[in-house]
Amino acid sequence: MSAYAELEAKAREITRLQEIQAITGWDEACMMPPGGGPSRSYALATLSGVIHERESDPEIGELLNKARSDGAPLDAWQSANLISIEKAFVEATAVPTDLVRAKRLATLQCEQAWRQARAENDWPGILPLLTEVVNLARQEADALADAMSLARYDALLETYEPDLRCADIEPIFEDLKSFLPELLDRVLAHQQAPLILEGPFPIESQRRLCEEMMRVLGFDFDRGRFDVSHHPFCGGVPDDTRITTRYVETSFLESLMAICHETGHALYQQGLPVDWREQPVGAALGAAIHESQSLLMELQVCRSREFIEFIARKIRAQFGHGEADAAWSSDNVYRHVTRVECGLIRVDADEVTYPLHVILRFEMERELLDGSLKVADLPQAWNTAMQSYLGLSTEGDDANGCMQDVHWYAGLFGYFPTYTLGALAAAQWSATAKKANPEIVPAISRGDLQPLLGWLRNHVHSQGRRINMQPLLEEVTGSQLDVNFFKRHLQARYLS
Amino acid sequence: MSAYAELEAKAREITRLQEIQAITGWDEACMMPPGGGPSRSYALATLSGVIHERESDPEIGELLNKARSDGAPLDAWQSANLISIEKAFVEATAVPTDLVRAKRLATLQCEQAWRQARAENDWPGILPLLTEVVNLARQEADALADAMSLARYDALLETYEPDLRCADIEPIFEDLKSFLPELLDRVLAHQQAPLILEGPFPIESQRRLCEEMMRVLGFDFDRGRFDVSHHPFCGGVPDDTRITTRYVETSFLESLMAICHETGHALYQQGLPVDWREQPVGAALGAAIHESQSLLMELQVCRSREFIEFIARKIRAQFGHGEADAAWSSDNVYRHVTRVECGLIRVDADEVTYPLHVILRFEMERELLDGSLKVADLPQAWNTAMQSYLGLSTEGDDANGCMQDVHWYAGLFGYFPTYTLGALAAAQWSATAKKANPEIVPAISRGDLQPLLGWLRNHVHSQGRRINMQPLLEEVTGSQLDVNFFKRHLQARYLS
Repeated sequence: MSAYAELEAKAREITRLQEIQAITGWDEACMMPPGGGPSRSYALATLSGVIHERESDPEIGELLNKARSDGAPLDAWQSANLISIEKAFVEATAVPTDLVRAKRLATLQCEQAWRQARAENDWPGILPLLTEVVNLARQEADALADAMSLARYDALLETYEPDLRCADIEPIFEDLKSFLPELLDRVLAHQQAPLILEGPFPIESQRRLCEEMMRVLGFDFDRGRFDVSHHPFCGGVPDDTRITTRYVETSFLESLMAICHETGHALYQQGLPVDWREQPVGAALGAAIHESQSLLMELQVCRSREFIEFIARKIRAQFGHGEADAAWSSDNVYRHVTRVECGLIRVDADEVTYPLHVILRFEMERELLDGSLKVADLPQAWNTAMQSYLGLSTEGDDANGCMQDVHWYAGLFGYFPTYTLGALAAAQWSATAKKANPEIVPAISRGDLQPLLGWLRNHVHSQGRRINMQPLLEEVTGSQLDVNFFKRHLQARYLS
Repeated sequence: MSAYAELEAKAREITRLQEIQAITGWDEACMMPPGGGPSRSYALATLSGVIHERESDPEIGELLNKARSDGAPLDAWQSANLISIEKAFVEATAVPTDLVRAKRLATLQCEQAWRQARAENDWPGILPLLTEVVNLARQEADALADAMSLARYDALLETYEPDLRCADIEPIFEDLKSFLPELLDRVLAHQQAPLILEGPFPIESQRRLCEEMMRVLGFDFDRGRFDVSHHPFCGGVPDDTRITTRYVETSFLESLMAICHETGHALYQQGLPVDWREQPVGAALGAAIHESQSLLMELQVCRSREFIEFIARKIRAQFGHGEADAAWSSDNVYRHVTRVECGLIRVDADEVTYPLHVILRFEMERELLDGSLKVADLPQAWNTAMQSYLGLSTEGDDANGCMQDVHWYAGLFGYFPTYTLGALAAAQWSATAKKANPEIVPAISRGDLQPLLGWLRNHVHSQGRRINMQPLLEEVTGSQLDVNFFKRHLQARYLS
């Protein structure tokens, strides 16, 4: 067996154990009774240990050296696979085990305490725990940076999206910082308030509507499931992709739009290259590209006027309303799904203000990591930034300020930018696809997603990790990530 | 750390990985979409390999030697735990890895082919595959026998119920062989045919009834779930115990009685000793004891006249029938759940004929393993035995003869006797408990299981693997497994 073939065999075992991890993780969120929590946490931690042990197996290091030097010819996919295997090995071995353990413990404690502290708006209570997490995250970033010869924040970005650097992000965010506030003013002046959609909306009707939406968008139920969980997410594996939403009786658009978003993630996962199922190169590329697929479905397709024309009929049928009722007209539903409002909460934000939430976090987490912003000064810095970006104050309301997102409390630094990069890439894919196939838009207005899905399958989903984000965008759309697609999309949707 | 403490640490990791295995196995049966099958099989096989690697870790062997010789004092539970750890190690290391792999492959192929072959009554088609499985099972039994210094069949029994031997089983089965046929004739002459219960029975009503039954019996929903699967089973782990049933619209007693049975398994699992959650000594003792708990709930409690008095009211309420309707009277429902009939199929058998099905298989599988019965002669031998035990022919109907059970085709030899030993032990526990606490029976007639459950928790469930089956029976009931409890139970129920 060649060194490369031995590496494939080792990678295959790791992928299979990661499948087990994905399914038991999904189970914990969707199926596990409350009493099962403690023993499950231990079981999952043990499994993580087993996987980490295999990922950092020194034999992989030796085989990588051999595979690089033995001159055995590899095709493009095999070469890309070798790069992915090496990347996983470097990341797994970069951080000393003691630090991994210390950070896991600190983030578990901090995340649990955060739930309570946020509910009680208790910033002083969480401060010492977050300080410890930031401290350990900095050490982890330094260890990764050292192993990968990257700057500290770039090393974190690398773990979420291969080859993504601050240098890619900064000019884009600077552009948006000057573009969005002005656009926002114009949109707020231009938009019309929607009529209220009167509930209640029975959960079973909502569930049926969500399932119908998934079928319309192309979700393969033979290789996936649809369930309920506390927060909507997409989990599982390519041939068993599982998405969730949550319901309240008082409104339905949130759960429906969450399903559009998660189905976008799911279609990507179900469309990953079949020939590379059990190898790293067959996995999803990174967080930004994953988000580009969910946001393409949610923002570019499902909140578009042409799709709303189609789906409003299904909505009216499900809740028993006639077309004559102005509140249930497609115009009014469209006004709901494209409503722009300045708010404190990122997850509730529309696509115009969302990037400002992300930019605020991107700037702040870099300062936290390099020490120029002290953790203790976070509430004040947050308030100042919110005033500046969205004209809102979080003075005395840290629960809806710097305590609103779990990310930092869970030790996730470097993740936030991928949300906005995903929104930009979604606009870029969408414009390119529509130009390449003029049948896409008319088909969407008939509820036929096949022309678009076929294009995505071909150009994005089936590419796995063959090449990284920027070269893939360049190959498919003719340019690297370009903010102008997103800007044109916002102008067309919100100012026309 | 003492050698014993190191062993506990290793055992803990294995238990945690087994928990992951239990949950992903449950998921495969209850949740997995069809397309997820192939990748899940590989993932589960990989996980089994990881677990087997740890179970047979040579360091465990060295630590066992040290723990035995270092003179560190162990209490009774720790000593029992050491025995369980050693047993798992001996069984894991007994069989050469090549043989494990060959048998796994052969049984997977044979079991898959069996589904088709049984459906088509195609004995010649399955014969070569079964021959190979029997051949490998014999080799495995020899390897186990060698490692444990036991006779071949005893070595297999040992893997299902610690310290259970043919010498325990033979006198009991000889006794039943002379007792049951005569009893059967008298019961058939004595019993009254029940009135038909007219359906259909809506699935949702059946589901509610099953859930109500589980609550009555004491299932802890905070530490468990209830779902649907192709065959009823009990899975999961002590703090997350999951049972299933299946429904047909044309009848409801099968799914309800399946739930009584599985809840018995579940109550045992949920009641295992909390202090030993992650150690082998805290696990269920063996297959016979597990079955004694399911059959105690199903046969001793749920099919008893006093419980039927109570539950018939719930049944009538669920399906909207009045007490005046003779078919829905508790007398008639009781006649249904205690109906005795000679039939070809073991899983459909009543408690009077069931042991004859088991004895037939026990005798035949021992002959298969020692070679005195050739696999090719199985259909003829089956037909002869069925004629002799139940007066029924399977001539030309192997699908309902020697092809009806999956066990042999899946390589499970030595398991069948535990069904009947479980039924005997159930009668023994039940008689002992009722004698110890006269409140148990009147409470059952009010639908209050607490007095019985408290006794079981105390004397059986919380004992884990502290001592083996026969000493446990002796300690709690005053005698080792005694067929007379079962015989008295049958006489009282079916001839009074």
